Amino acid sequence: MTAIRDYVEQNKERYLRSLIDFVKIQSVSADPKRANEVRRAGQWTADILKNIGFENVGLKETGGHPAVYGEWLKAGTDKPTILCYGHTDVQPEDPMEKWTTPPFDPVVKNGNLYGRGADDNKGQCLTQLFGLEALMKLDGKLPVNVKVFLEGEEEGGTGATEKFVFDNAKLLACDAVAISDTAWHSAEMPTIVTSLRGMAYLEVIVRGPSRDLHSGVYGGKVQNPLNAMGKIIAKIQDENGVVQIPGFYDDVVPLSDKEKAEFRAVGDEDEWLKKDLGVKALWGEKGYTTLERNWGRPSCDVHGIWGGYAGKGTKTVIAAEGGFKISSRIVANQDPEKIAKLYEEYLKKICPPGVTLEIKVLHLAYPMMVPIDSPFLEAAATAFEKGFGKRARMVREGASIPITAAFLRALKAPSIMVGYGLNSDNIHSPDECFPLDHLYNGIVTNYHLYHEFARVKK
Amino acid sequence: MTAIRDYVEQNKERYLRSLIDFVKIQSVSADPKRANEVRRAGQWTADILKNIGFENVGLKETGGHPAVYGEWLKAGTDKPTILCYGHTDVQPEDPMEKWTTPPFDPVVKNGNLYGRGADDNKGQCLTQLFGLEALMKLDGKLPVNVKVFLEGEEEGGTGATEKFVFDNAKLLACDAVAISDTAWHSAEMPTIVTSLRGMAYLEVIVRGPSRDLHSGVYGGKVQNPLNAMGKIIAKIQDENGVVQIPGFYDDVVPLSDKEKAEFRAVGDEDEWLKKDLGVKALWGEKGYTTLERNWGRPSCDVHGIWGGYAGKGTKTVIAAEGGFKISSRIVANQDPEKIAKLYEEYLKKICPPGVTLEIKVLHLAYPMMVPIDSPFLEAAATAFEKGFGKRARMVREGASIPITAAFLRALKAPSIMVGYGLNSDNIHSPDECFPLDHLYNGIVTNYHLYHEFARVKK
Repeated sequence: MTAIRDYVEQNKERYLRSLIDFVKIQSVSADPKRANEVRRAGQWTADILKNIGFENVGLKETGGHPAVYGEWLKAGTDKPTILCYGHTDVQPEDPMEKWTTPPFDPVVKNGNLYGRGADDNKGQCLTQLFGLEALMKLDGKLPVNVKVFLEGEEEGGTGATEKFVFDNAKLLACDAVAISDTAWHSAEMPTIVTSLRGMAYLEVIVRGPSRDLHSGVYGGKVQNPLNAMGKIIAKIQDENGVVQIPGFYDDVVPLSDKEKAEFRAVGDEDEWLKKDLGVKALWGEKGYTTLERNWGRPSCDVHGIWGGYAGKGTKTVIAAEGGFKISSRIVANQDPEKIAKLYEEYLKKICPPGVTLEIKVLHLAYPMMVPIDSPFLEAAATAFEKGFGKRARMVREGASIPITAAFLRALKAPSIMVGYGLNSDNIHSPDECFPLDHLYNGIVTNYHLYHEFARVKK
Repeated sequence: MTAIRDYVEQNKERYLRSLIDFVKIQSVSADPKRANEVRRAGQWTADILKNIGFENVGLKETGGHPAVYGEWLKAGTDKPTILCYGHTDVQPEDPMEKWTTPPFDPVVKNGNLYGRGADDNKGQCLTQLFGLEALMKLDGKLPVNVKVFLEGEEEGGTGATEKFVFDNAKLLACDAVAISDTAWHSAEMPTIVTSLRGMAYLEVIVRGPSRDLHSGVYGGKVQNPLNAMGKIIAKIQDENGVVQIPGFYDDVVPLSDKEKAEFRAVGDEDEWLKKDLGVKALWGEKGYTTLERNWGRPSCDVHGIWGGYAGKGTKTVIAAEGGFKISSRIVANQDPEKIAKLYEEYLKKICPPGVTLEIKVLHLAYPMMVPIDSPFLEAAATAFEKGFGKRARMVREGASIPITAAFLRALKAPSIMVGYGLNSDNIHSPDECFPLDHLYNGIVTNYHLYHEFARVKK
């Protein structure tokens, strides 16, 4: 263990200089004018891979921004193959005026590097690449077969990279995916995200009379589309937060006792959360803690609603139509297509008399779950202990990382999320930063990670 | 009866010329630039009153547009005093491009006079003034005491005229108000409107977290204000269209069998209405016909709703707040202040956990009802028979005419709505018109109306 620590200690300056150079590349994937910068960031990481000793290294055209690919497959067929995934693109820097340091001219301050992408994902991505480099330098080889696959459009996705994964399942075939692109639950508690939610997102238009009507002349004669909309929304979820759509929960994998225990170990933040959000009470499906609801249960949220007169004062109108956008975040084993279909059937069933519905499915995303007893997860937890001296907790996240669902569906591979970010790193916001000790210890952890992966029986 | 017919026949040309002159005055009360035209319209009618022989004739300043007042009180204290009410102002002419004749340069076509205000209320108002003139010319006196009160801001109300009524209750004191400002149910069926609905109009803001949240990170943790808004709206009215606010119906005067019979006589238009509005079903409070619901029962309509993301595509946001505007049209004997208070109490009671409500009362209007056995109504029905050869049906209206509620509350006087308009007269729209035979027969009817009023015992 001393060898890797010493090695990282000796190379700290070089690692930092590399991260600064990487951040200076303005690889904002959402900005068409900077497409060349995205390509340059890909090429920059490809050069590192070549220097480490990876083979078949190059950019892969996806139809969107290109991805980086490289492989080292000499560990033997008895060893697992790991797909090392990250992304080289970054979020836009807006709003510029809120940055206290230049987003693309990074500055070291208080033990952090400040700049766009310092954490998400350039700093974390370098923990992966320099971890692999350290393995090669210290051991002369990698303990497992490794394919590196770095996306160029994670922050401004067209879906092209996901399609590339499905179209190139053989090229990317692996036993597990290693990702360093998540944050710890707190600065003191490293966590491994074992599951992410998917989504079914719909838009519903509620149509009544063929024109706007005067509420005096017509009030009481017809179903009001906005009244009807309230009735529809109210029937989707009951007073206990339970979604009323038949079959909605059928495929949900129940939270295991082990997972519930892991969640409890993370601690109850309800009081803090209420204060932070300025609400008197948290709320959701009865019988579950706040973390269980967000991490392990499907949700139901109206995202937007409109119809009739929203200006100042009064207008006595019965609007011809109104609409709302709604989604459910879905959990492991739920199928977004099936959930969208159940939504559609239910909405049509509960549609009040006198109005009609137009239902559009706007977005579907698959959930992702690694079984909590996966040996790859165990390997990651051990790597954390060796890299940071702390046991990582197994948690979930309420949000989605669609590519992990693609890896699961296209490659049948679990995504092992060994992330080194902190919630205070301001990702997607001004003054993004990454703690330098997380950069260095992350490299140590990723060094151990591949050794631990090597112990997993194929 | 021949005398009045002959007299009107001889004066047709003069009546028409007068109406043309009246319409030419651009008395658009909503347009501050034409305030002088509103005043001129008032002066123009005041001159007619003086010519007829009215006393104390002049403009009354109200704080808004001036009103016209004149009186003839020589019928004796044993005769009723009638307040003859109308308005001299008109709706704006917009949209100009949709007029096929000039709005303020009236044209006779197909037996109608076309122009802004031809029906509402200039044509109908002249049936009143020339009815009074005919009484003076033929009888040498009026059969009842008459106060004429013509408003200058019915179409662009500031509330100043209503306040004037309350502040000048002694000046305007009367036994009944005669109004010619309504339309028949159909071209073949003259109707007298005996009741109008009032209104309680509120705005509700539903507030949740202090900022917009990511639905992945927070979905399931907190009450979503837009979900909550749906639940709130759904609890106001049940599946049968019955408002669920405790005490809401307490003061409603039930429809009498006589009224229900009158409504039935008007005929069932449900099939026509469904076709006209393009809906498969009409809807409302169970146990009542469409007309009964609109005319005789309080309603509940959401007029506008907003919150979150209403643009194209998806945004996975939990909005910090949303809002809606809602009103109930209320019926005879319901008090809008009480109804607004019941709304407020109920909304607070049903507010789901995790959100708070801000409730604003935006508008209150009192309902108006004349008891269907009022002798003044009977007088009006007889006048219709004499003027148009048709018995008028007693109906209600779902909309509001706030000044009639002011007459009821300030003067304790029922408003007898002897209107001559048709639904095809395009009031408030381009190509407004008034049938000339309704102008002439309306004068005959109003002549008889005052004779019939004279028979009502004080």
